[in-house]
Formats: sequence, C-alpha cells, structure tokens
Amino acid sequence: SKVQIPPKNDLSSTIFTIFTFKYFTPLCPPDIVRLSWSKSIMWPPGWRSALRHCIAGWVRSVRPQKENLFLHVNDGSSLQSLQVVASSELNHRLLTFGSAVEISGSLVTSPSRKQDVELQADQIDVVGECNPVDFPFKIKEKHGLEYIRQFPHLRCKTNVFSSLLRIRSEATTAIQQYFKEKGFIQVHTPVLTSNDCEGAGELFQVEPAGQDKNQDEEGHQHFFSVPAYLTVSGQLHLEVMAGAFPGVYTFGPTFRAENSQSRRHLAEFYMVEAEISFTQSLEDLMKVMEDLFRSTTEHLLSQCPEDVALYHKHVSPGYRVRHQKISQMITYTEAINILNSSSKKFAFKTDWGSDLQTEHEKYLVKHCGDVPLFVTDYPYALKPFYTRDNQDQPLHTAAAVDLLVPGVGEMCGGSLREERLDLLKTRLAQAGLDETYRW
Amino acid sequence: SKVQIPPKNDLSSTIFTIFTFKYFTPLCPPDIVRLSWSKSIMWPPGWRSALRHCIAGWVRSVRPQKENLFLHVNDGSSLQSLQVVASSELNHRLLTFGSAVEISGSLVTSPSRKQDVELQADQIDVVGECNPVDFPFKIKEKHGLEYIRQFPHLRCKTNVFSSLLRIRSEATTAIQQYFKEKGFIQVHTPVLTSNDCEGAGELFQVEPAGQDKNQDEEGHQHFFSVPAYLTVSGQLHLEVMAGAFPGVYTFGPTFRAENSQSRRHLAEFYMVEAEISFTQSLEDLMKVMEDLFRSTTEHLLSQCPEDVALYHKHVSPGYRVRHQKISQMITYTEAINILNSSSKKFAFKTDWGSDLQTEHEKYLVKHCGDVPLFVTDYPYALKPFYTRDNQDQPLHTAAAVDLLVPGVGEMCGGSLREERLDLLKTRLAQAGLDETYRW
Repeated sequence: SKVQIPPKNDLSSTIFTIFTFKYFTPLCPPDIVRLSWSKSIMWPPGWRSALRHCIAGWVRSVRPQKENLFLHVNDGSSLQSLQVVASSELNHRLLTFGSAVEISGSLVTSPSRKQDVELQADQIDVVGECNPVDFPFKIKEKHGLEYIRQFPHLRCKTNVFSSLLRIRSEATTAIQQYFKEKGFIQVHTPVLTSNDCEGAGELFQVEPAGQDKNQDEEGHQHFFSVPAYLTVSGQLHLEVMAGAFPGVYTFGPTFRAENSQSRRHLAEFYMVEAEISFTQSLEDLMKVMEDLFRSTTEHLLSQCPEDVALYHKHVSPGYRVRHQKISQMITYTEAINILNSSSKKFAFKTDWGSDLQTEHEKYLVKHCGDVPLFVTDYPYALKPFYTRDNQDQPLHTAAAVDLLVPGVGEMCGGSLREERLDLLKTRLAQAGLDETYRW
Repeated sequence: SKVQIPPKNDLSSTIFTIFTFKYFTPLCPPDIVRLSWSKSIMWPPGWRSALRHCIAGWVRSVRPQKENLFLHVNDGSSLQSLQVVASSELNHRLLTFGSAVEISGSLVTSPSRKQDVELQADQIDVVGECNPVDFPFKIKEKHGLEYIRQFPHLRCKTNVFSSLLRIRSEATTAIQQYFKEKGFIQVHTPVLTSNDCEGAGELFQVEPAGQDKNQDEEGHQHFFSVPAYLTVSGQLHLEVMAGAFPGVYTFGPTFRAENSQSRRHLAEFYMVEAEISFTQSLEDLMKVMEDLFRSTTEHLLSQCPEDVALYHKHVSPGYRVRHQKISQMITYTEAINILNSSSKKFAFKTDWGSDLQTEHEKYLVKHCGDVPLFVTDYPYALKPFYTRDNQDQPLHTAAAVDLLVPGVGEMCGGSLREERLDLLKTRLAQAGLDETYRW
C-alpha cells in the first residue's frame, strides 16, 4: 500500500493545526504549514514561502485517472473544498467518500479555471475510515432534509448542515461584536428562575430527576425551596442591570412549553435581549435594531458568502440576505388603516385594538415595498405593564415598536420602559401585580 | 430650581448615547458629544474638538462648596467616575447619592492631580430620583456581601457587583475572540436533552408547569415523548461536530442538581467545552488550554484593570490575575509520588489509582512553585469510556490532562478521544453502554 498510516511519534507526519502553529514550531519541521483551506484570510502568514503544506479534512470526491488521482478535500472551514492532485500510485481502497485524511504536498497555481490553487500531494494518510456501504450519505446524491434528520450524529457532514452551523456561528459572533463595540455589558441572565409572570401554561418546571413526587406534592420540598422554572425572558433582570450600565444585553437559551409544531414555535431557542439606559425616544431603539440587523447581515455576507448563497439557492429560495437600509416606518394606527383598505380577506380581525397576526404583518411588509418595516405605537392595552404610556387619549397607545421583515413577519420588538413611578404603580395595581413586583 | 427636567421633545437636552452617535447626527445639535466616561478608547473620534459634552450616569458623591459644586458621576462603563464641577447655583435637593443625571458642559484639563480631565457643567438634569432614606446603600459606607445580597435588584449599583459584571462580560468576549481567531465554530449545544449518561442523581428533569403528575406517572405522557433533562455537558454533541470542522466549541449554561452548598458546586453555571479535530498528542490540548487561559487574563488586564485591581485588593486578596507562562507539567504518577513523599496528612488517600482531590491539587500546585500546573496521564480506570488508552500496561493510564491553578485546584481538563473503533467498542461493552451509544 502507498497509504502510510503513521506511527504515533513519527515527526515527519505530524500535523499541527493552524491555531497552534506558532507554538508548535519547536516540535515540528518548520517547513510544513497546516492549511485551513479556502479562506485565504485564515492562511498563516508566510504560507506561500513554505516548502510543504498540509491539509486535514474529509474526502468529498475521488477521481482516479490513468496517471493522476484527483481528490476534493473539505476541512469544514468553508463550503469550498480543496482540489488535491497526486500520482495515481497514491490511490488506496480506504480513500473513499467521507474518509478522514491528512495530506502533505505543495500548494501550486491550478491550471484549471475552477480554482486558484491546488495541492500537489506526495503523501496521503487515511486517518479515519468511512465504509461507503454503511455511510448514509452517498457521493453526488442530493439528500432531503427528512432523510438527513434520521442521522443526527452525522448530519453536520452534509453541506446543508455544515453551512447552517457556520452561519449560526458567524451570526453569533456578529451579534456579540456589535454590542461589544457599542459598549454594552454582556450579562448571563439566569436560566433557572422562580419568575413565572408570563403565564404558567408556557413554562417548563424543573426538579431533580428521581425526586419522590409524592413527597414533593405533600411537603413542597422543592430543590430551590420554591418552584423553579426555565426562563422565558431575561428582560426583567436586564431592566435592573440597566440601572448601573450604559447598556446591557443577553444572548442565551430561552424556553417555551408551547405544544406547537409550527415553524415559529420552539421549546428551546436563542434570543437577543438588550436594555439601553437614558433613552428618550423610540428612534433610539429603532436605530439599535436596524444597526444590529444590518451589521449581522453584512458580517454574514463577508464571512461566509458561499454558505449564505447555498441557502438562497437550495433551502430558502424566497429569502435573501441583503444589504439594505430600513427606511419604512408606520404607526399601528396607519397599519390598521392599510389592512382595512385592503381587498384581501384576513382570517383574523383587523379592527383597532386587535393584535397584528403574522398574516397581517406579511401583508404590511409587501404593501410597503417588501422591505423591512417598523410599526410603532401599539394600543396601550396590548402591551405589558412596563411599556411607556404615550398618554394620547382617546387613542391611548404605548411607545412600542416591532420590526417586521419580508417572509417572516415580526423579527424583533421593543418599547420605551415606563419610568414615571406613579403611572407604573397604578398599572401594576390594576394588573394585580403590585405584590409580585413590589421590589 | 436650577435643575431643569427637560420636556420630551426639547432638542437642546437630547442625549444621544455613544453607540447611536453616527446615526443621530441629523436629529441632534452636532456640537454635543455623549461621553462614555473613563475609557478614553471609547470616546468618539473628535471629542476634544466638540464644543459641548454630555454624560449620563449615576451620582456617586455630591460636595457643595461655597462657590462650586463638585460631583462624581459614574456611567457603568468602568469603575472610575468623572469629576463634574459646576456653579453651586446648580445644586438641588434631588441631586443625591444614587440619583440618575444627565449633565452637559465642557470637558477640560483638571487642575487636580487626581484626574486628567473634569467636566465643567452648565446644565444638570436629574432624570431619576433616589431617596437617600430608602436607598439601602449609603455614601462612603462599606457594605458586606451578606448585606448586599438582600437587594438583588439594586446590587449591580455597588462597585463589587458592577466590577464583577464587567469582568464577566470581558472574560466572555475574550473566550469568544480566542476561539473565533483560531477558526473554531461556535455551536449552541442543546440545554434540553434526553441524555442522562452522567448519573441520574445529578440531573434536573423538565416537564411543563402545571402538568398533571398522575397522568404523567401513569401514562408517561412526557412533553418530548421521552424524559427530558437539563444538559450536564455538551461534549458528546461537540464530538459529533468535530467530525466535520477543524474545531468546535460551546460556551453556555450547564446544570447539576447536586445539593451542595460549597463554593465549587453550582446548580447553574457557564462552561467552555471544545473539541479539536486531527490532534495527535496531549500537547495539542495543553497549548489550547494555556493559550485560552493566558489570552483571557491578558484581555482582562487590558480591558478592565481597575475592576481586576478591586478584586485583588478587597474581595480575593489571595488571588492574582497574572501574565504567566504555564511551564510546569507532571504526570499523575509523579504527582502521587510527590503526595506520598510529603509529610502533610491528607484527608483523602493518595495511593496510585485514587482520584486527586482538591486538597491534593492545591498541595501539588504549591509544591511545584505556586504556578499553574498540568497533570497528565491519569489512571485509565478513572476516566470515561471515550478517553484514549495509553496502552502502557501494567500501569495502564489514559491520555488525559488537568490544568490546576493556585488557590483553586482543577480549572480545566481534557483528553485525547479514543479513535480506535475496536478499543472503543470493547470498552463500551464492558461499561454496559454499547446499546446507549450504538450510534
């Protein structure tokens, strides 16, 4: 066999990952550079002058020809694979679709127009076998999402899932960079909470596994001395923190025990929540929403454009991540007028005072030019106790805003918080919440 | 009164926060710049040439003198407060310790050596009152942690908690920046899981609140069709992901239902977990641990040095965040020899094969020079099924490593994962886990 499985301490085959490169120089031959393929910005400085290069990844295609062997190898750093060219003598029965390989050689300009560079390999090591009969994903086959979901331990090896994970990771980075740059403090608001204010029907309750439930029911010997739930929102924690910082935010898991199978309901999901101190108008909030939305899409388009393109092309052809100024803004009252002047029949009612449903939101977005849209000043009675009263009777609206986007409807919402203590106390008493929120 | 509470739409008193500065220019007088105090790097470009400056924050001290009024105002962006000097005519009864203020004036070089600059104020607006009688924290008083913990909704207004929150936020940033720079994909591993492998006694179980428990016990009608628990580790999810990416990590909440009141046990805590593909030796892991540890401490010392200094001085005088190379490394076998040669009496036994306890770890750290210390190659029998077998019988160790640090003991641990399928299958069968992990 021409494939050499290296002995553990054979330095000539030591692969060092890019992130330990600068530290491992003393242990490794200095003329080998590990490539994290396809993002040129991730190549270590000086790679072009290195004599030899290595890639570690997974085989995406094997094309043996008479004299040459062509491989495509993907290391997960992007959707793109690296073309590898080797003497056909280096082919081997373990070199199959899905197998894990470490390959050394020289990176050269590719004669093909399909790629800028290719790796001319002189050593190919199969470090992880992949039996093509057992492996559920087949080369050049398009597998549907329903098929892929049967293999949760393997699905990240498919393009659709590896792209999704890269997009999510980059979106997370973008959100955190945005708030960091703007001086927000990131707070890990608690997941376990005794707060059940949003209605017990949607809450998950938590007790140690194996706890005697009869004892629990009779003696109320809860683990935390009170019933504990999974958080539905970190907002009240953040409102408290906003009394000491210019701005605070949390980005963590949130839970709803809604027994719904729709695309818009999840038992567990990640949510961004932010509070800004010393705001005076809804415009302050709209600028943050717009800026966060835009900087995240710009980050995605620059950091993982191939992954975004894959989703545009194959997964969600109706949606596009776009650079775009959000310029449309209407009030709730204007929105109701638009809905009532429409010839479209809606399933839910559209009289002033009703909440906007997804069908209404999607219609409004289309009506306003199919661009992101702010809707402001909702009916006071629809909003929670902490929302600032606009005191515009007889209409009576609150200083709240939702951001609606094409194809989805509501993406985020916010409000000015009521800072006038007398108004807040009156409303809490009306809602019967004055004891709960006495603090 | 000289204190002016501004009407809502009075542009002359509009305060715009630093993070919306560039967008709000059209709405605001261009000669007012909002300061995020005391981190000069956060001041907007051109602040020195601006004619007027604003600060929004909370009053930390009020010193009225005959002609001048001296305030210290803190906006939460750092531990430091900004000195404000105004005509004593601007003093007002609402200008108390803890009140929220918006102040406009000119930033000038301070005549005092205590600070570089001070704000000469010509307008002071109290936008949030604070009754000094009701407010539990008193000016110039040192409040103990036991006292402060009675006021969870106010404690972030104290130095000890605001520093802690800034340190935690910056540590979070440092961890995420480190992994991002090294090409890791951030994965949000699930919090809700059906995986109960680490022993049911430590798990929290989750069901919707208000669910009929009798129905649950009889019919086993779980919300997720199987019992659901809160995650104790995302590691197995990450191991799966490591089959498609150069490296993956998660940084999220983790749960243990241990009924322990020690400083080392929490029901809910944040944990970093990472998996690296194509590693070949424990050194690969030790470099990542050391690098993460060092880059985080360096980030903290550069981003919030005053907060770290406060903790060194008042909260944990025995601990120091230091720039330091971790150079000490011993094997478990050497560690046992050190413990057995010691004259110290340990509460837990120290024969080869016993796990290292905190008392042992602290002793080893002290013995090796009171610096961070790697201990490698633990007994195979002590480690989980996925740990790589060193095959060094009769000793029989596994390729695992712990990082011990002064004052704490174990800070992180890791291992090479067993990639030899036959060894893995044998061990799973021995542990009776072959069915659970058949996938």
